[in-house]
Amino acid sequence: VNTFFTGIVTLLTDFGTADGYVGAMKGVLLSEIPEVQIVDISHEIAPYSYRQAAYSLLNYAFNFPSGTVHVVVVDPGVGSKRKGLILKTANHLFIGPDNGVFSHIYRSVSYQAFQIKEQEFGSEVSATFHGRDIFAPAAARLIKGEDIENFCDPVSDLYSFYEAYQKMAEGKLILKVLHVDHFGNLITNFTYGDWLALGQPETLCAKIADIQIERIKKTFSEVGSGQYALLWDSQDFLQIAENSGRASDSLAMGEDDSIEFIIK
Amino acid sequence: VNTFFTGIVTLLTDFGTADGYVGAMKGVLLSEIPEVQIVDISHEIAPYSYRQAAYSLLNYAFNFPSGTVHVVVVDPGVGSKRKGLILKTANHLFIGPDNGVFSHIYRSVSYQAFQIKEQEFGSEVSATFHGRDIFAPAAARLIKGEDIENFCDPVSDLYSFYEAYQKMAEGKLILKVLHVDHFGNLITNFTYGDWLALGQPETLCAKIADIQIERIKKTFSEVGSGQYALLWDSQDFLQIAENSGRASDSLAMGEDDSIEFIIK
Amino acid sequence: VNTFFTGIVTLLTDFGTADGYVGAMKGVLLSEIPEVQIVDISHEIAPYSYRQAAYSLLNYAFNFPSGTVHVVVVDPGVGSKRKGLILKTANHLFIGPDNGVFSHIYRSVSYQAFQIKEQEFGSEVSATFHGRDIFAPAAARLIKGEDIENFCDPVSDLYSFYEAYQKMAEGKLILKVLHVDHFGNLITNFTYGDWLALGQPETLCAKIADIQIERIKKTFSEVGSGQYALLWDSQDFLQIAENSGRASDSLAMGEDDSIEFIIK
Repeated sequence: VNTFFTGIVTLLTDFGTADGYVGAMKGVLLSEIPEVQIVDISHEIAPYSYRQAAYSLLNYAFNFPSGTVHVVVVDPGVGSKRKGLILKTANHLFIGPDNGVFSHIYRSVSYQAFQIKEQEFGSEVSATFHGRDIFAPAAARLIKGEDIENFCDPVSDLYSFYEAYQKMAEGKLILKVLHVDHFGNLITNFTYGDWLALGQPETLCAKIADIQIERIKKTFSEVGSGQYALLWDSQDFLQIAENSGRASDSLAMGEDDSIEFIIK
Repeated sequence: VNTFFTGIVTLLTDFGTADGYVGAMKGVLLSEIPEVQIVDISHEIAPYSYRQAAYSLLNYAFNFPSGTVHVVVVDPGVGSKRKGLILKTANHLFIGPDNGVFSHIYRSVSYQAFQIKEQEFGSEVSATFHGRDIFAPAAARLIKGEDIENFCDPVSDLYSFYEAYQKMAEGKLILKVLHVDHFGNLITNFTYGDWLALGQPETLCAKIADIQIERIKKTFSEVGSGQYALLWDSQDFLQIAENSGRASDSLAMGEDDSIEFIIK
Repeated sequence: VNTFFTGIVTLLTDFGTADGYVGAMKGVLLSEIPEVQIVDISHEIAPYSYRQAAYSLLNYAFNFPSGTVHVVVVDPGVGSKRKGLILKTANHLFIGPDNGVFSHIYRSVSYQAFQIKEQEFGSEVSATFHGRDIFAPAAARLIKGEDIENFCDPVSDLYSFYEAYQKMAEGKLILKVLHVDHFGNLITNFTYGDWLALGQPETLCAKIADIQIERIKKTFSEVGSGQYALLWDSQDFLQIAENSGRASDSLAMGEDDSIEFIIK
């Protein structure tokens, strides 16, 4: 019996919308399942940015009802062909490429992983449009109750880009910038759980060139305009934010850069 | 008895879509009300631009069916904490911050205003994500029929940025640019109603540096390519538009700038 | 009897979303037909780009279920007033201006064409907002079962910008760039059908300045990073793509440019 009957499909892509590629995926889904509820998450992931997609996915995936199918299409990029994956967690299905977009899912919940057998999706498969010809039809087949093992094989050895922060001597931590959000906030790979595990040190101090940013605040408004704050983001990652500004610009830091923190 | 049972919720934010913040709000709404119809208005409001949100809201709010809930989340910005508001008009509900996003609603229709009691939204409220943790759940509670006074108090003294145009001596008017739209049209704070109240002067003449723009046209096509026209916009504000160009660029004018008009 | 009862309406515009113009169209549709399913295709068509809209439309239109109404609103631009059109094909309805947005539909399927009688849409018609005041209401009237000839006249002599590729002496072909997509791929006006008609020449060679791009590949991954490939796009147009790059940038080519090909 199929437990995935909510018929909600979310879409996250790096396609932009103007070319009609996302429209084609929506048409396929509605043709297969007239009552499907398609939920746009974003089509403005930076081209090929599996890291941005991974962060975004974590922000919304588990807010959706049980039975939602989350489809992620970010171009797998160069070279060797990436596998098409389906992950099954307790409450959700995830469909997308094996290029790191599920990195945060892997470390958040338990899952079973499957590789899509492309040959099960007929002879009309365009080499360049997996979203329309494989991922959307796969979502439809699962929602209609087909067994996942009909067109997938179990798989392991999945690609993740996630690295934990590093703990050095003398209370020094090396964090990495996971993601720069729409407001220029620098989201790091240090979580509230990591902080608890370190014994909840009251003062964490980020050192970026001459600037020191101290103590974790509850909200922006505890610092003045143009000043920086350490905050827990909506997924409990530690972020550096600037009140009324873009921390990424004024600190000249971006994705994957390292930041030194001192525990006092 | 709840009259707000259409289950349509519109979303207007300055979040962009790529970070998944809007996705989280949608997930919360669908988890609370599986049959909700979520309508994306825009997530591309310029960061913190309550003025742009206010103009946009006026453009669509009253085209929606009776019983629609309009949610507006534009970051309240710096400093003192802004109230979360709910406005109840004859046919619609509006949820958003008290930072001016409802300025045009206040002067368009009668309403009752309420302040959301944040403590009614539990202990898990993230300091940085009111949209997901307060505004979306508040919409869901109202749609499910809960009484607004269960989690809100009546409030007055609301913030509005709207200023009427100024009438000077000798037929001179000072208008302000309310909004620059996607096509570079300059939308002013002078309405068709204002024009009627002045006795429908046939010739209004805008003076911007050496340029004079005369008479109100019915459509772009009454002037040549690269020329300017005075037109009533779709909300009956007077706008300055350039045929095949961006008036905002070529006239070097933007939001909140003043323009002198002469009644002839 | 009305066969167009699916109640799906797709929207493709050059409005952007931030001004609320698209929101107004959605409100009108939901007010007329509460159970309508509105599907956003894109609102990020470049301002006035009927060419981009035409390409996009072809990418999704026929993936939608029978009975879908496709609404396209791209500003008709300067000068003479463009007709509002409705096309009826075997399975779909198309509503939009007669400015070329349907160029690819005309050559893909058979259709009946009608011109909308604007005076049938009442006295409140704003001169500047056909999308809200004519196209959306027209879609609603058709979905509710009204006969198209109630508010439309048959029309012919429609505008199309599409030009077929040119065949010169000695195996030389002149192709044009139809469209540059989100990834910088150059999509040409040479189709898989054109290639079959030429006898499936194994080697087609594009010559752009000093660069030669040879043979049609199945996928990006057959060439190295930074190299070019000839590929069939998802609508079977021949495209020039760069692995991990934007062909449009590195080859400095754009919409409507000509490219010389040699058949070997």
